[in-house]
Amino acid sequence: MKKPLLIGIDAGTSSVKICIFNINGELVRQGEVKIAFSSPRPGWIELDLKQYWDATCRVLREITTDLTGFAGLGFSVTSPTTVFLDDEGLPVRPAIPYLDIRSKEDVEELVKYWGGEEDFQSHVGNKPIPSTYSAGIVRWIMREENNSWNRTKKVGFLNTFLCGQLTGEWAVDPTVASFSGLVRLAEPFKWSDELRELSGIPSSKLLTILTPYTKIGEVTPQAAKETGLPTGLPVALGCADTAAASFALGLSQKGDCFESAGTSDVLTFCLDRPDFNSMFLNRSHVYPGRWLAHGAMSTPGAAIEWLITNVFPELGTVSELEKEAERSEPGARGLIFLPYLAGERSPIFDPNAKGLWLGLRLDTRRADIIRAVYEGIAFGLRQILKYAEAQWDLKIKSLPCVGGAAKSQLGLKIKADVLGLEYQTTDFQHVAALGAALLGGIAGGVYMGWEDPEIPYLKKFNSCFKPNFTNYKIYDQLFTIYERLYPSTKEAMHALNVY
Amino acid sequence: MKKPLLIGIDAGTSSVKICIFNINGELVRQGEVKIAFSSPRPGWIELDLKQYWDATCRVLREITTDLTGFAGLGFSVTSPTTVFLDDEGLPVRPAIPYLDIRSKEDVEELVKYWGGEEDFQSHVGNKPIPSTYSAGIVRWIMREENNSWNRTKKVGFLNTFLCGQLTGEWAVDPTVASFSGLVRLAEPFKWSDELRELSGIPSSKLLTILTPYTKIGEVTPQAAKETGLPTGLPVALGCADTAAASFALGLSQKGDCFESAGTSDVLTFCLDRPDFNSMFLNRSHVYPGRWLAHGAMSTPGAAIEWLITNVFPELGTVSELEKEAERSEPGARGLIFLPYLAGERSPIFDPNAKGLWLGLRLDTRRADIIRAVYEGIAFGLRQILKYAEAQWDLKIKSLPCVGGAAKSQLGLKIKADVLGLEYQTTDFQHVAALGAALLGGIAGGVYMGWEDPEIPYLKKFNSCFKPNFTNYKIYDQLFTIYERLYPSTKEAMHALNVY
Repeated sequence: MKKPLLIGIDAGTSSVKICIFNINGELVRQGEVKIAFSSPRPGWIELDLKQYWDATCRVLREITTDLTGFAGLGFSVTSPTTVFLDDEGLPVRPAIPYLDIRSKEDVEELVKYWGGEEDFQSHVGNKPIPSTYSAGIVRWIMREENNSWNRTKKVGFLNTFLCGQLTGEWAVDPTVASFSGLVRLAEPFKWSDELRELSGIPSSKLLTILTPYTKIGEVTPQAAKETGLPTGLPVALGCADTAAASFALGLSQKGDCFESAGTSDVLTFCLDRPDFNSMFLNRSHVYPGRWLAHGAMSTPGAAIEWLITNVFPELGTVSELEKEAERSEPGARGLIFLPYLAGERSPIFDPNAKGLWLGLRLDTRRADIIRAVYEGIAFGLRQILKYAEAQWDLKIKSLPCVGGAAKSQLGLKIKADVLGLEYQTTDFQHVAALGAALLGGIAGGVYMGWEDPEIPYLKKFNSCFKPNFTNYKIYDQLFTIYERLYPSTKEAMHALNVY
Repeated sequence: MKKPLLIGIDAGTSSVKICIFNINGELVRQGEVKIAFSSPRPGWIELDLKQYWDATCRVLREITTDLTGFAGLGFSVTSPTTVFLDDEGLPVRPAIPYLDIRSKEDVEELVKYWGGEEDFQSHVGNKPIPSTYSAGIVRWIMREENNSWNRTKKVGFLNTFLCGQLTGEWAVDPTVASFSGLVRLAEPFKWSDELRELSGIPSSKLLTILTPYTKIGEVTPQAAKETGLPTGLPVALGCADTAAASFALGLSQKGDCFESAGTSDVLTFCLDRPDFNSMFLNRSHVYPGRWLAHGAMSTPGAAIEWLITNVFPELGTVSELEKEAERSEPGARGLIFLPYLAGERSPIFDPNAKGLWLGLRLDTRRADIIRAVYEGIAFGLRQILKYAEAQWDLKIKSLPCVGGAAKSQLGLKIKADVLGLEYQTTDFQHVAALGAALLGGIAGGVYMGWEDPEIPYLKKFNSCFKPNFTNYKIYDQLFTIYERLYPSTKEAMHALNVY
């Protein structure tokens, strides 16, 4: 008998990637489609769900052609993307991704109920900011779009909508609900009455919270027609993309961690109790009794891209950029870079932070200027690591790194030296999709549950960068300076905001 | 009868420029030769005076060929460059220019006698740093080079040596002696006994202090043979280069000022009493009862050169650089540059200051990065202007600007807008040499003294940049941020010193 196949749908803000794996976690086929989001006003970001669904169907039809033996499907979604659905599960308005900041004032209003940010944080488990408090956007819609709100019967997230389209069943998963501001992270499967009443959202419009690997339903005949999937295929609700990646990597014990290095850069730590640090974005994990803390830098990959497009266009490629940076030396000859090119999330959570090069001298060269950017990114990660190790009493010795930026040899070498730990990388670029497919595998009964030892977690890495301790010492000194630089320039950064 | 000609010798650290003018101050002929200084150890800078003299003779012979009617010669010299001469006026060792910092500890030692830097400053009139305290280098030679010191009969400066070679007479002028640490600026023609005894220099080795336009002597037959100059030509002692330029521009009233914009950038103010500000380098002027205060930035011109050679080599020329900067806008879209690429003199006097770009964002482009450098230089000048206006109760409305960087249209436009005043410039590139020649003219009796209304001061400027007040307001806000940035990053700058 043919081995069954699993489908992982990685639904992002700017693309949908769909991967088909065999039960050993090996990629069989893959398809991707770009998604256009719109920005009707500055700070507003919207996704047209009809287009999103159509694009998803198109890719599904294409990549499932000639294949049979599908045993399960699961989702990994950009999070939180809030959806407003009618009785039929159809969108009453475009979805609103986490990048949208229109609810800033609503969130500030809601926080007033608490003593302040810290009280909210300690009660809920996350900072009260639009990207981790989606109740703010619901409140905004309730107030500003009466008509949409009246037609809304189910408030959910991107996987709510997609699962509903496939199965006719709707639910919310705890990894995404963690960023709703309606759940206390200590009790991730329960809408908090206090939080819900505060935001004014009626409980009738909220959906059940189900584990990401729950079989929410099966592909309906209607959906089968649209997608080319077999009717009856078991579907898992899935979870937030970084949670899906954490699951694919088998992060199940306290202190297990990984870095996902893309446009932004996230260090994720597995926790075994709801003991949070406010410098992290925190959520419930896929595994019961486990949580994830994300230390998220906003623009590391974007900074490298920026060097090529905006600053040194003559170099043209990442490879030329890195060749140039290698002409410098560890410490970039005394030049420090703060990588806050679009504000920063962890650890400073300051949307008005700015980038900086300090230490320019007459003998500073282009090579130093570029290398300082790579080092500044690594210092940012080290700062996150430092807070994580202190908060959770960890001593991280090696770190798996996945994502687009994990291809940068120079970047990884510098990170290994700056953080003083071993970096492990892989060419495999579909970690979140694998996580989604594995959740589908549990829902489909291919695996016996999250505790099944047969789950083919991604544990093989094809290269490893060990730290050089001579360099580590150089960076160690610079890191002390790096850490003090933001506090001393914060005021100027904010003053520059008017330009 | 043919009109007489005047010779101005502008003796620098890296070149000697000799200009011949008619009595209307018009250039007749010009010659220049590069001088190689040596750096036997880090921080040490030396000039071989034999080579220096030979090079000077060569240029003099070349440019005086076929010309007659010379009526006077004067010097403008890089200052202070300390010379150690034997009984014959020949150097016992290489000369030591102001860039040499080997006497740093000697100077610190000498300052201990006073309550501290401020006490020294208020007594003497300048900061106790190697470049304005040449007694420190004499003390170093006394201790470290016993043999040289024993053979030394006259301690003087570069014009002492050159005049001695031409005339067989030796003296020191007050504009250079102002940086000796042996003269109280309030009494510029008198070696201070207290200061001299403190440094341990015997009065027998010090020379008379004479005004820069004094006829120190006449060209000797021996010198005539070497230089091609006529025997008997009257020679003026001359003065420091910026003082010579101030004289050429006729800066004689309180508040008269000009900018000399080259590798470094100096704002010079004429004072009518010895009322000094410690953020300036202060000296006696050519005119009796007048002083000069120099606000000196170390690397403005060097920073532009640095952008081309080290940072954006693909742009290749100043003209391409400025074209690119013009693609940005006033305020460089919120990017600020601190121009301390080799530490800074005025107003912060910090050899360990470093350059900085702050305000980098994902939409910052190369054009902004370049423009910020031009603006940072202008902010530095504005800071100097601000302290000058406050200290001496001035309101400067227009500023003559001379020197190599005065050719930069963009630089001048930005300076006019940032400082909020009119910039006047000239293509004439020999201001200090003209000053030297005019001093020679007084010594030779062509002019009746410093008060002669016939002295052809440089008063014509061929272009003028008026401030745009819309831009001024933009810069005004940024300037507030600029001013606070050094104090808040100073500690980090110093910490980066180890690299």
